[in-house]
Amino acid sequence: MTAPFILSLDAMGGDYAPEIVVKGAAIARTRYPSAHFLFFGDEAKIKPLLIADKALSACSTIRHTDHVITNDAKPSQAIRQGRQSSMWKAIEAVKNGEAGGVVSAGNTGALMAMAKLIMRPLPGIDRPAICGLFPTRIGETCMLDLGANAVCDARNLVEFAIMGECFARAILGLERPSVGLLNIGSEDVKGTDSLREASQILRSSHLDMEFKGFIEGDDITAGTVDVVVTDGFTGNVALKTAEGTAKLFSFLLKSAIKSSWLAMFGMIFAKPVISQVMARTDARRYNGALFVGLNGVVVKSHGGTDAVGFANAIGVAVDMIARDLNAKIAAELARIAAEQATPEFKEAVGAGVAPQ
Amino acid sequence: MTAPFILSLDAMGGDYAPEIVVKGAAIARTRYPSAHFLFFGDEAKIKPLLIADKALSACSTIRHTDHVITNDAKPSQAIRQGRQSSMWKAIEAVKNGEAGGVVSAGNTGALMAMAKLIMRPLPGIDRPAICGLFPTRIGETCMLDLGANAVCDARNLVEFAIMGECFARAILGLERPSVGLLNIGSEDVKGTDSLREASQILRSSHLDMEFKGFIEGDDITAGTVDVVVTDGFTGNVALKTAEGTAKLFSFLLKSAIKSSWLAMFGMIFAKPVISQVMARTDARRYNGALFVGLNGVVVKSHGGTDAVGFANAIGVAVDMIARDLNAKIAAELARIAAEQATPEFKEAVGAGVAPQ
Repeated sequence: MTAPFILSLDAMGGDYAPEIVVKGAAIARTRYPSAHFLFFGDEAKIKPLLIADKALSACSTIRHTDHVITNDAKPSQAIRQGRQSSMWKAIEAVKNGEAGGVVSAGNTGALMAMAKLIMRPLPGIDRPAICGLFPTRIGETCMLDLGANAVCDARNLVEFAIMGECFARAILGLERPSVGLLNIGSEDVKGTDSLREASQILRSSHLDMEFKGFIEGDDITAGTVDVVVTDGFTGNVALKTAEGTAKLFSFLLKSAIKSSWLAMFGMIFAKPVISQVMARTDARRYNGALFVGLNGVVVKSHGGTDAVGFANAIGVAVDMIARDLNAKIAAELARIAAEQATPEFKEAVGAGVAPQ
Repeated sequence: MTAPFILSLDAMGGDYAPEIVVKGAAIARTRYPSAHFLFFGDEAKIKPLLIADKALSACSTIRHTDHVITNDAKPSQAIRQGRQSSMWKAIEAVKNGEAGGVVSAGNTGALMAMAKLIMRPLPGIDRPAICGLFPTRIGETCMLDLGANAVCDARNLVEFAIMGECFARAILGLERPSVGLLNIGSEDVKGTDSLREASQILRSSHLDMEFKGFIEGDDITAGTVDVVVTDGFTGNVALKTAEGTAKLFSFLLKSAIKSSWLAMFGMIFAKPVISQVMARTDARRYNGALFVGLNGVVVKSHGGTDAVGFANAIGVAVDMIARDLNAKIAAELARIAAEQATPEFKEAVGAGVAPQ
C-alpha cells in the first residue's frame, strides 16, 4: 500500500495503554511509511511517549479526551456514557472519513456495541462478528466468531459462514474456501439445535459454498477447513485455549533447555529453525481480529498484548483497507441474494442474507 | 495396588478396536501385574490378538458378543437396541461386581447414557460429567465437563464444581483445590446467564470451596485454578483445541529440525530434554477421562488413540478403583448437605447437592 492513509488508534484501550499503542504505532510506521496515525486519548500521557520518537511524531496527531472505557464496563453503559471516550472518538473518525480504519485493545463488548451503533452493520447483516487467523499445519485458517456474540442462533451462524468465506477469499486468497461448523463430533446427531439447524441450512440452501459439515476442536489447527464457524463463546474459549497451549509448550521447552548444559550447547545449532517455529506460533503474530459485517474497518487487539502485537493488529487494519474487504462482503451478499437465493432459502434464513 | 483386581474392557469401542484395546491391555499388564482383564466383543477378532501374547492371555477372559455400538448411534437408540453390545456388557460387569471398573474408547454419548442407566448417578447428582487432566506450567489441572452434557444450567455447573473439587482432592492430592468457571472474560458481566447464576451460587452459598470466579481459556494451561468447570460443549472444544495445538507445535518443530542438517546435529544434544517436554504434553499421556458422579468407575478413552493411550486410560481406571473416588464424592456431598447447607442454599441449588 503506497497511497497515504490514516489509521485511528484508541490510545487508552488495553492493559498497557497508552505505552504499547504508541510503541506499536512506531513499529507499524517502519512497515507502512505512508501511514498517518490519529491517537485518541489523554494528551498528557501520549505526548511524552510521542516526543521520544521524532519519526513517529511527524506522522501523528493527538486528539485529546479524558474519558476512558474501562474493561468492566457493560456495552450498554459504554454506549450511554462513553460518547466522549477515546474509543468512541476513534471509531467516529472512521465514520467521518477522517481515517480508513480503527484499532483498539480495549473492552471488546463496548467496542463492538459502539462500532455497530456508529458505523452500522452492512446491509443484510444482523450480527457482526470477530474474525481472526490461526496457524495450521498447512497454512492458516480463519475463525469466527471469536467473542462478539456469546449466544448465537442458526441464522447468526449462517451469516458468519458467509462473511468468513468472503474473508478467506480476500485475505487468504483462496478461490473456493472450505467452511466447517465447530461441534463436539462430526456426526449429524451431535451438538446443539442451533448447530444442527445451521448445518441443515448450509447444506440444503443454494449457497455456492464448499461446506464440509461439522468439525471438531482439533480440526482448527489441522487445517481441515479454511473457515471455522462457531458462536462467540466457544470461539473465544478455543482461541484463548490455543494461545495458552502454545505458551505452555514454549515455556516448557525453554525451561527444559535451560536445565541442561548439553541441550543449551545443542540449541546453538538448532535455534535458528526452532525460533522460526516459535515465531510462526507466536500469539502476537496472530494478534488483531477483524470485526466483520460492519460499514468500516475495526480491528480489535488483544488487551494484554505488547507493542509487537499491537503493530500486527495495525497491520490487519492496513490489509483490510487495502483489500477493501467490506465492499467484497457486501458484493457477495448481493450476489447471493440476486443469483442464488430461492424463496425457500430466503424463508429458511430469514432476511439475514438479503440486502435490505 | 497389589491386591488382584479385574478390569472390564469394551474391546470393540474406538477407531482401531479391537487391536489397540488388546495391545493397550498388554502394556497395562506390565504396569499392574495383578490385573485381570475381561474383554467384551467379537471372540473371532480378539482371540488371535490375545494368542500372540501369552502373558496377557493368562490374565484375560473373553466374553463374546457380536453386537457393537457404532460412533454415529444416538444415545437413546444405543440404550434401546444395544443391550447385547460389548459396551453394555462391559458396563454391566462392573454393576454385577465382576469388575472394579470399565474402560471404553467407543461412542461417548452412548457410554454415558448406558452407564447412567446401568450404574445410576450417585445420590444427589443430576448429571454425571466427564472429567480429565490437563498439563499446566506448574503441574496439572482437572477440567469438567469434557463432553457429556452439551447444554448445562447453573445447577449442573455447581454440581460439576463439587465433583471436580473432590476429584482434585483425591487425584491431585490437594487439600483445598481452587475452582474456576470457564468464561470469555473475568468480569462479572461476561458470559451466559447460566454462568453468572452458577457464579452467584458458588460465591454466596455456604460451600466451603476456594472459588476463584471466572477464568478464561488461557488460564487452563496457566494453572490458574486446580479445577476448571464448564459445560460439555465448551469443555470438549477446549480439550480438542488444546490437543490440536500441541500436535501442531510438535509437528512444526519436527519438520523444522528435519529441514536443517545443523539443527539435526544440535538435536543430538538437545533431544533428551525436548523428548521430556514432548512426553509431558503428549495427548496420550492425558488419555482416559473419568465419568464422575456415577456409582462405579467408568473411563472413556479417546476414540482415535493408540495402544499407549489406551493403556493410560486403563491406568486412570486403576487409580480410581485404588483411591475409591466415588465413595469420596458421596461422602463430600453428604458432608456438604449435613454440615453446611442452609435452607437458603438448598433453595438456591435445588435438591441437587443433598443426598436423597
